Amino acid sequence: MYIVILAGGSGTRFWPLSRGKSPKQLMSILGGKSMLQRTVERVLPLNPEGVLVVTNAVQAGETAIQLEQYRNEVRIDIVEEPVGRNTAPAIGLAAAIIANHDPDALMAVLPADHYITDEEEFRRILRTGGEQARSGCLVTLGIVPTQPETGYGYIEVAAEMNGSGPYPVRRFVEKPNREKALEFLDAGNFFWNSGMFIWRADVILDRIKEHMPVLAAALASLSISVGKLELSGLKPQVAEMYQAITGESIDYGVMEKADNVVVIPSSFGWSDVGSWSALPEVIEPDDAGNVMINVNGQVNLDSRGCLVYGGGKLVALVGVDDLIVVDTADAVLLCSKDRAQDVKKVVEELQRRGLPKYL
Amino acid sequence: MYIVILAGGSGTRFWPLSRGKSPKQLMSILGGKSMLQRTVERVLPLNPEGVLVVTNAVQAGETAIQLEQYRNEVRIDIVEEPVGRNTAPAIGLAAAIIANHDPDALMAVLPADHYITDEEEFRRILRTGGEQARSGCLVTLGIVPTQPETGYGYIEVAAEMNGSGPYPVRRFVEKPNREKALEFLDAGNFFWNSGMFIWRADVILDRIKEHMPVLAAALASLSISVGKLELSGLKPQVAEMYQAITGESIDYGVMEKADNVVVIPSSFGWSDVGSWSALPEVIEPDDAGNVMINVNGQVNLDSRGCLVYGGGKLVALVGVDDLIVVDTADAVLLCSKDRAQDVKKVVEELQRRGLPKYL
Repeated sequence: MYIVILAGGSGTRFWPLSRGKSPKQLMSILGGKSMLQRTVERVLPLNPEGVLVVTNAVQAGETAIQLEQYRNEVRIDIVEEPVGRNTAPAIGLAAAIIANHDPDALMAVLPADHYITDEEEFRRILRTGGEQARSGCLVTLGIVPTQPETGYGYIEVAAEMNGSGPYPVRRFVEKPNREKALEFLDAGNFFWNSGMFIWRADVILDRIKEHMPVLAAALASLSISVGKLELSGLKPQVAEMYQAITGESIDYGVMEKADNVVVIPSSFGWSDVGSWSALPEVIEPDDAGNVMINVNGQVNLDSRGCLVYGGGKLVALVGVDDLIVVDTADAVLLCSKDRAQDVKKVVEELQRRGLPKYL
Repeated sequence: MYIVILAGGSGTRFWPLSRGKSPKQLMSILGGKSMLQRTVERVLPLNPEGVLVVTNAVQAGETAIQLEQYRNEVRIDIVEEPVGRNTAPAIGLAAAIIANHDPDALMAVLPADHYITDEEEFRRILRTGGEQARSGCLVTLGIVPTQPETGYGYIEVAAEMNGSGPYPVRRFVEKPNREKALEFLDAGNFFWNSGMFIWRADVILDRIKEHMPVLAAALASLSISVGKLELSGLKPQVAEMYQAITGESIDYGVMEKADNVVVIPSSFGWSDVGSWSALPEVIEPDDAGNVMINVNGQVNLDSRGCLVYGGGKLVALVGVDDLIVVDTADAVLLCSKDRAQDVKKVVEELQRRGLPKYL
């Protein structure tokens, strides 16, 4: 099995800590290793054939530095996209590279910036998924929902469920409103779409050919040395290829249209840590429900539900609730917790104003 | 007329910007000159005989540095209290020093940390007050209230009001609740107690003798060279004197008990800038009602009524209302605007924990 790590995200929802050159997956929000490093370490016990990291030119240098330490344990290749085009082109590119080396190799596609508590269970699911995928189906990991989350897409399964799956997928559902999310939770046959997939390289390439012919043609134009996982010299070809394609997610481009898609119900303490407000899911709040990261002590008078990412300073909270504060060297974010998704709008505004030093 | 400036306050409500060595009156919250410097500059056009600043040992050095530039325009003397004992001892000490030099000299007592918009009108009131005080009454400046403020004490006048005063004082009233404050505002014969006074040095010493005999005896023990405003050599005597007395405000110790107290209704755009939440009174908020000081640009998404004292950084506000944020090199305050008075409790907590580096 090859591991494909999608690591080119911009992480604008974690501004001002995440910037263009140090996005969420390269950051050490939780202290210690970055999320990318944790993602690699998590799969090493599976002894993968190789790890293929898809990133972009801006982040490639830091990505290489962070992964250097694992090169004696596993083959690591880093592919640069000239520009982000959502997940389908990145996955197609990885599949094309792997298939040239080993056509029916298994590949697990993992985002670089997810948090997982139970890593043993995660690897067990990956192994199970690999066994399923050998037969030619598209396997997706569906997280068993624990709350009526409106921030994730859902996957509905078709069959009466018994055992541990996998189950045939009936449909992919966009992020629901709260009412719908409650329905899904009650119904019991809906799972969170984790964005993690397992399939054979040749199978996903066939499905891309079937449902995304423009992307398939662009991929076919690549001249990759057969039998070798050889990336040097690929850069100009990739640059040309990306001019021919438009952005699309693999979910919309392939998964929602393909037959033979199955989901494995998964419970391994997962969070996509999609915004600052998700951190209390992965860092235990204190008795007052506050999460304080990188602070030098706190004084709390009647404050609850706050997240403070400090600049190593003493933090005093007086009568504030559900506040997100991120204090960096040149920028400070003050955000209501229920507006955490809108942090990306701040980044968009800074782009509009032409203030690259904050991006 | 002598100007006595009470400058020994600790300014804990302006933590973390104000610290023991740099309290509110020595700070440049508004940019430019400190509040102490503004207080001195405000009275220079009155050509006072001298300016006597009462402060404490910790702040005396910085006080002297800040006032050095005015020494060629007016005689400035700095008296150090060994310990803060509220306003009565500080005023008594200043009166004793001035009276030894010039017994029936007028003295105007001014806090070092008040904000005044209309300085011409302020000086006109001081001159009027001085004329009144020559006859031996105790003159206090009563601010014409503009809102049902619960953060100030009030002064009720006895007489039917006509003209511009001064009016005999009926009583001093502690900070009222909102209901009472509304009553006072409606009644029309209540003024905010500004803590600014004008009287003859011998008159206030007589009243202290009458109503505060312990303080009067301690003051009498001082051996001040008659005819000279001479402070060198006074320090050990003052230290001894302060061991004999207890803390008391001049309001409670003298003003509430004395006869012949009059108030001059004053409207010169006054604020005691008592806490962070008072800053919007003295710094014009922007269109969204936010006051941003010492920041390097802002992005505001739906945020109103906030006060940010930044560390020269870009500040992004997302959906936050009525928030006070003060970002300093080693400490950050996050405070609900309606809890601004409780910032001093943070300082008390830091004292309890024994963290002097933040005090």
